[in-house]
Amino acid sequence: MSEGSIAGRVPAYSLAIDAMGGDNAPDAVLDGIELSAERHPEARFLLLGDEAKLSGLLARRPRAARACSLRHAAEAIPGDMKPTAALRVRGSSMRMAIDAVAVGEAAGVVSAGNTGALMALAKIVLKTLPDIDRPALAAIGPSARGDVVLLDLGANVQYDARNLAEFAVMGDAFARAVLGLPAPTIGLLNVGSEELKGDERVRQAAEILRDSHLGPNFRGFVEGHDITAGTTDVVVTDGFTGNIALKTGEGAMKLMGGLLKQVFTSTILARIGYLLARPALDRLRDYMDPRRYNGAVLVGLNGVVVKSHGGTDALGFAHAVDVALDMVSHGFNERIREGAALLRRGPAAAAPEDGPPAVPPDGASKQEPGRDTPGHETPGLSSTALR
Amino acid sequence: MSEGSIAGRVPAYSLAIDAMGGDNAPDAVLDGIELSAERHPEARFLLLGDEAKLSGLLARRPRAARACSLRHAAEAIPGDMKPTAALRVRGSSMRMAIDAVAVGEAAGVVSAGNTGALMALAKIVLKTLPDIDRPALAAIGPSARGDVVLLDLGANVQYDARNLAEFAVMGDAFARAVLGLPAPTIGLLNVGSEELKGDERVRQAAEILRDSHLGPNFRGFVEGHDITAGTTDVVVTDGFTGNIALKTGEGAMKLMGGLLKQVFTSTILARIGYLLARPALDRLRDYMDPRRYNGAVLVGLNGVVVKSHGGTDALGFAHAVDVALDMVSHGFNERIREGAALLRRGPAAAAPEDGPPAVPPDGASKQEPGRDTPGHETPGLSSTALR
Repeated sequence: MSEGSIAGRVPAYSLAIDAMGGDNAPDAVLDGIELSAERHPEARFLLLGDEAKLSGLLARRPRAARACSLRHAAEAIPGDMKPTAALRVRGSSMRMAIDAVAVGEAAGVVSAGNTGALMALAKIVLKTLPDIDRPALAAIGPSARGDVVLLDLGANVQYDARNLAEFAVMGDAFARAVLGLPAPTIGLLNVGSEELKGDERVRQAAEILRDSHLGPNFRGFVEGHDITAGTTDVVVTDGFTGNIALKTGEGAMKLMGGLLKQVFTSTILARIGYLLARPALDRLRDYMDPRRYNGAVLVGLNGVVVKSHGGTDALGFAHAVDVALDMVSHGFNERIREGAALLRRGPAAAAPEDGPPAVPPDGASKQEPGRDTPGHETPGLSSTALR
Repeated sequence: MSEGSIAGRVPAYSLAIDAMGGDNAPDAVLDGIELSAERHPEARFLLLGDEAKLSGLLARRPRAARACSLRHAAEAIPGDMKPTAALRVRGSSMRMAIDAVAVGEAAGVVSAGNTGALMALAKIVLKTLPDIDRPALAAIGPSARGDVVLLDLGANVQYDARNLAEFAVMGDAFARAVLGLPAPTIGLLNVGSEELKGDERVRQAAEILRDSHLGPNFRGFVEGHDITAGTTDVVVTDGFTGNIALKTGEGAMKLMGGLLKQVFTSTILARIGYLLARPALDRLRDYMDPRRYNGAVLVGLNGVVVKSHGGTDALGFAHAVDVALDMVSHGFNERIREGAALLRRGPAAAAPEDGPPAVPPDGASKQEPGRDTPGHETPGLSSTALR
């Protein structure tokens, strides 16, 4: 296969897989691929890692063996390596997997390795999409009314109103691609007190979104409890707040789970009660299973980048692969590209009949000429192959 | 009783009560006082509200009648009134209750009314304590290792590192007064990614706290899941993040509760299981009962200010009164005053043996001469009367 970026070409591989990342690599990674290969027979994977070790493991996983090509990577990024140090390791499995996306060999990458390193490498190697200032970390969580997309989860601590609006564009594309929603509703996370409706950036972002092509689906401000209430399909916030909201919500559920465990072991009757209710409780546990929500996505880059939880098992890794395949096959980045361009053009793009083309807002000056060329994340999979 | 502020005087009333604030006022307020009066026979309350209505209600609540004095307030602040409008209503029950604290008649105020109005009125009428730049909203929540204090919950969206450090001083005082902890541990809420350890303000606040008199109990950065894990007794953050963390955590627990309800009604066996486990489940429900955590406190003002949830019942209101009485009787503001002065003096105050007195940090220039005079929130209750 020839190296070098060939814009618009269909990649040979659906996904490049960092086979050496995560606590249980490479076994959990290959077991995950074995599951994914069964669910998505069309998918092709490029496995990066220790060739000798991987070929031995593949020999015992027939479906994965058929779906995968192996490429040797001499190094692996340790989980505790600083991102700045990881950037200097050229031959790592993580770096080579990202490089495969950069040159158009694969449409996306999945890694269960070092989060900071993955974000730093992906940003530097893949670069942001046209009209997107900063990438964001997005994930799906449970709510009372179906799954909800939350972003940014920590890619950006510094941000402005325009970044928040771009996160909304990316969250919209994510909800369409991965949740399959035709018109996702969007909320902007804010505080409740009337007097203190967020800071200036949040208020400005709301104005931008109201006037944008996303306006009809933008539901304005939502509060913390609206995330799990499922008030909107997408909840947009900055990386500091989003990271803390995600972990606080997870922590609260963990507390409840722990207390429930205590309840059901506290008396003999409660133990019997647990046994009777167990099938129903197991369904609840399955519904809340963190593996079902595994796969945080770094959105806004030239290529699909999915971070699997480092401690996950085969089922969790397979879910992260599913998310990546959904994004690849549903033209995820094409939609972001279109949405970001509309956003950049300002209110005139949303309602051209309202008057002459609007003066581009402040942020538009950041747009570099020539950045709007087609990329190479064209889907390599038919959508019928996906769940 | 003579009007006017008399510094250092013991107030005639433990608390001034806004009898007209909240969805169920004045009935739930008076029922709550009836409960509190039984638990705290020494407490004296000044009730502000519609005199005719209140005297009729008091006639049927003998304990409250003995513990309360009535003062007529012709107006009540509606729940949806803007804080700026509420500031112009001079004769409201909320305003008159706060005024009673300002003139030294009462040590603190409890209201279940309009949050924004209460915060705005209390800030303007009571003013901040010496060496405290901004007040904060604090509350207690459940964790796997006992109750946890979280602040700020939304009093400040704008903040700097010094404000966060002052929130830690106030959280420390709150945990001592209300949770009765002799040496509360303190964490500063931050994001997890090594690369992105919060913004500059959070990092600076950590340095200030490490070098301060709180240093020995300061545990550095904590993440969202540490709140309910109970990693530290006090979790400090800005008002935007804190408000969202609180509501996201509450929302997650509500989601779990709703799903559990579904589980236990989904099959006949699950229903029977529920009945068997019910006494244990009821204990869990009691433990998580939001009324047990009712009472957000606006800390950092000259006087104790407690906001009860607007929709709470008598039990919840009584709990908010308990919190206020705990603060009043445990010298809450005296401790803040001392801690804030130590913080303002800088590292030298924490470790005077390390060298000559340190140059005061930047923030110290804000200190006005003569602000450090004693206030009037001296406790009017003996601590033995309190739970």
